[in-house]
Amino acid sequence: MQAMTEPRWLDDEEMRAWRAFVTTTVRLFEQLDRELKADHGLNHDDYAILVNLSEAPGQRMRMTELAAQVLESKSRLSHHVGRLEADGLVRRESCPKDLRGLFAVLTPAGRRMMRRAAPDHVRSVREHFIDYLDHAQLRALADALEPVAEHLQAAVGREQPTGDCGGLSGPEPEVRATRAKSRSNV
Amino acid sequence: MQAMTEPRWLDDEEMRAWRAFVTTTVRLFEQLDRELKADHGLNHDDYAILVNLSEAPGQRMRMTELAAQVLESKSRLSHHVGRLEADGLVRRESCPKDLRGLFAVLTPAGRRMMRRAAPDHVRSVREHFIDYLDHAQLRALADALEPVAEHLQAAVGREQPTGDCGGLSGPEPEVRATRAKSRSNV
Repeated sequence: MQAMTEPRWLDDEEMRAWRAFVTTTVRLFEQLDRELKADHGLNHDDYAILVNLSEAPGQRMRMTELAAQVLESKSRLSHHVGRLEADGLVRRESCPKDLRGLFAVLTPAGRRMMRRAAPDHVRSVREHFIDYLDHAQLRALADALEPVAEHLQAAVGREQPTGDCGGLSGPEPEVRATRAKSRSNV
Repeated sequence: MQAMTEPRWLDDEEMRAWRAFVTTTVRLFEQLDRELKADHGLNHDDYAILVNLSEAPGQRMRMTELAAQVLESKSRLSHHVGRLEADGLVRRESCPKDLRGLFAVLTPAGRRMMRRAAPDHVRSVREHFIDYLDHAQLRALADALEPVAEHLQAAVGREQPTGDCGGLSGPEPEVRATRAKSRSNV
């Protein structure tokens, strides 16, 4: 419940910033979605799951941790990963040392998919967003938004779980090389 | 199809800005969604439809125009408006002078919903976003993002249709007063 006092409506400057932010956001993710679908049959949420796995040590993450990263509920993520599993891009496995939950693991086909999709995706991100901003704007944007993102993480009370099978084994050399080279994590 | 040349991966500064933007976006809309649902049973997409209608002349919009504003496909918007119609917040009507399509109209119940939801929503937008930014940051954000939003509108090739029943009659005095007073269009 929020207090019943008269709210402070946005003034013109605040409204202009808010409108620009919302409009850019909605249009940008719609456009990225459309291009990912046309070129690779993925939507942006699929891509977020695959890129998180591709950057994780061993290319595997606990489902609860993955849910926190991509901001999906556990039940929604379960359906979502099920679809990616049906496409052969991800598989789920349990961890013998840890009975608390399932892990999602990027398959070789998922890895190949990311090698194809990441270069196109970074081109799209440049074409529709990054290349419109100069150095000062990039810095200003990050400086302005990082505290907002931190506040929101605290608001959600997100946890960063750790576990024996999900982060201690380190990436395989081949994977490490791909990550360093490709910066596919856009 | 995109060219097969090696893409320019994001450098550290670009990556920092992109990460901050994506993380803020995802977390922010998740949080606004959660608060709208808890307080008013609406999600953020519902709110976008209702606020667009509440600001339109006569509180009505052609479905194709509404689809362009909220960036939903016509079929998705049709389902979506159907749900809002079942809740009594919106009704659809045809226009006798214009056989090209249906209009969505905010009902009195929809208007009451917006009067209740808008003050809470503006508080949420302040609490989780606007109040983290000072004047210079608000201006910088709008200056940086408006060209991006314009580019994306061109990329999508969005139309702004006009029509006899959808924009010429002007708002009723009562509605005009609400709009001027409340700035409910966040």
